[in-house]
Amino acid sequence: MGVHLTHTKKVEFMNYIIKDENAIYYECAYSCDNALFLKLGSESFFITDSRYTVEAEEFVQGATVIIDGDLHGQANKLIKFSKIKKIHYDPKEWTLFHFEKLREDLKTKFKESPDFSHKKRMVKSSEELLLLRKAAKLGAKAFDDFADLIQRHGFKQDEQMLTFMAKAMLSKKGKYELSFDPIVAVNDNAAKPHALPTDKCLKKNDLLLVDAGLKYKRYCSDRTRTVSASKKFNFSTEQCFKKKKMQKAYDVVLKAHDNAISKARSGMKANKIDALTRDIIEKAGYGKYYVHSTGHGVGLDIHEMPYIAAKSEMHVEDGMVYTIEPGIYIPGEFGIRIEDMVAMVDGRAELL
Amino acid sequence: MGVHLTHTKKVEFMNYIIKDENAIYYECAYSCDNALFLKLGSESFFITDSRYTVEAEEFVQGATVIIDGDLHGQANKLIKFSKIKKIHYDPKEWTLFHFEKLREDLKTKFKESPDFSHKKRMVKSSEELLLLRKAAKLGAKAFDDFADLIQRHGFKQDEQMLTFMAKAMLSKKGKYELSFDPIVAVNDNAAKPHALPTDKCLKKNDLLLVDAGLKYKRYCSDRTRTVSASKKFNFSTEQCFKKKKMQKAYDVVLKAHDNAISKARSGMKANKIDALTRDIIEKAGYGKYYVHSTGHGVGLDIHEMPYIAAKSEMHVEDGMVYTIEPGIYIPGEFGIRIEDMVAMVDGRAELL
Repeated sequence: MGVHLTHTKKVEFMNYIIKDENAIYYECAYSCDNALFLKLGSESFFITDSRYTVEAEEFVQGATVIIDGDLHGQANKLIKFSKIKKIHYDPKEWTLFHFEKLREDLKTKFKESPDFSHKKRMVKSSEELLLLRKAAKLGAKAFDDFADLIQRHGFKQDEQMLTFMAKAMLSKKGKYELSFDPIVAVNDNAAKPHALPTDKCLKKNDLLLVDAGLKYKRYCSDRTRTVSASKKFNFSTEQCFKKKKMQKAYDVVLKAHDNAISKARSGMKANKIDALTRDIIEKAGYGKYYVHSTGHGVGLDIHEMPYIAAKSEMHVEDGMVYTIEPGIYIPGEFGIRIEDMVAMVDGRAELL
Repeated sequence: MGVHLTHTKKVEFMNYIIKDENAIYYECAYSCDNALFLKLGSESFFITDSRYTVEAEEFVQGATVIIDGDLHGQANKLIKFSKIKKIHYDPKEWTLFHFEKLREDLKTKFKESPDFSHKKRMVKSSEELLLLRKAAKLGAKAFDDFADLIQRHGFKQDEQMLTFMAKAMLSKKGKYELSFDPIVAVNDNAAKPHALPTDKCLKKNDLLLVDAGLKYKRYCSDRTRTVSASKKFNFSTEQCFKKKKMQKAYDVVLKAHDNAISKARSGMKANKIDALTRDIIEKAGYGKYYVHSTGHGVGLDIHEMPYIAAKSEMHVEDGMVYTIEPGIYIPGEFGIRIEDMVAMVDGRAELL
């Protein structure tokens, strides 16, 4: 991408328009599923419809709230009135249909800037780091609760029911939103990184992979554990599998995971951090079974910048938060992934 | 599977491209969250990435499956190779970013056709009607289960917990997907049609509004009941509220609901059906508290055509499936909505 952020979180552009819900939240501390945010020089506007009047007026910060059922028509009018000549937008946020409605008769130049909000949001503020730490802690606690629940009621249940139980623990029965639909996979189903839950049942000593997260004040957690579901198992990274082949692969994944967390440094390129997991897995002979990149940024979105991938030349900096999640997937047999979130603090990766 | 291959309405265009997941499913009986569907004259193509190879090859009907991580590049090549001059697309499905990737260097004319898939899907086949009937039945059964659960464990629980319980009943603890996040609102919270669940607790004889649905083989159900949560309440439309003001408004909403279902006819304009609920509510003096339209089509999407609205000039026909959901919302006091799905069969509205 070639964009190198300063540590200030200031807006790069004078004039821009945002449609994405989380990107809007970042600008003005409130958002909803039908809103637009406009920055026109020194003026900011939050536009939504009348269903959200009360909340918008209470929570929006640093922007004028405008209530209008025709969001795009209202934005069009504001831009016209401002006489501004150039305005930035992210082409990933806009459908052709809505963009056409927005622009209509305007002579303003619309300049595309892919991912400009994600770029701004890459380096987290200290307040954001606190929220992400809290989300990660609550997420880890939910894994412990889920282990307890499985020990009491989880054996002989199928993946669909286990997924339901995971959602109950993650959301604290409705209190928190989830970062994404949890993945709960048994044995060979764990070898499919995107498999949907099936009616396969969990038996004692099966391999169990759980990938799940929750949102704390809109900030996401993300964590994966792969365990041997013995009678008294827990979701720590110390695991003992009955099958030697599983244990061997597990030890390699854990070594790769630990290696990246201990050796990642601010200033490194993301592809260098990716290599910290990939080299270990490749040297152990599992290279072709490691079918994805090392990790992704986490914040308001569950997938953000920086992407920790073999092709990423981006520099990782203090304040960035991302996952380390190496894996080995042997089709038809089993899959193993160990994932934690880290924050770059004082040059090193702090486990969240 | 394969139930959609006998549409009553034939495809209008020779050449088109689809990105929306449900719109693709309708064409070829399979879809996933990263796919494109291309119809180029007599040839059809389903493009997805390697995560979905196994499922796509098993389930896609009537289209050639192509596996390629670069979906848009692959579609671009196929269009170029076909030498086709004009291709239709829905501008609501495409972001500027992806559309640019698709078109790149092509000289083909891309012709925008908003909602062309929704228009095709408006009249349901007999196989689709069976699935929608089944979804509605399962949805209604889940309401009964939810009533039982509330009687045992629901009083003194807050809306968040009640919403969680509704999800458990609707999904049968993970077996079915939901049509949308259920709305479970108590007393004055029911007056906000889009309120998120709060920590407000349910007490005996409170007003309780529940709007919820599930998916059966991808087809959605949608239902709303407003009840007086007495000790032995159920989710039927016969309700007895302690507060006279509530009962009066409830009776008006029920009358409007029943009137539309009994008098809707195939061939009527949608605005005429909207008037069947609106006139009754307006005449009773609650017009300004009826803040939405009478209903919306339901199918693979939870909101489809036809829209039963005051401004809709569209004719309703046999085979269409839509909701009748009048409501009265008195801010700060209470909200009432009664919603059912109907199918137009032999000229009349059949309750699903």
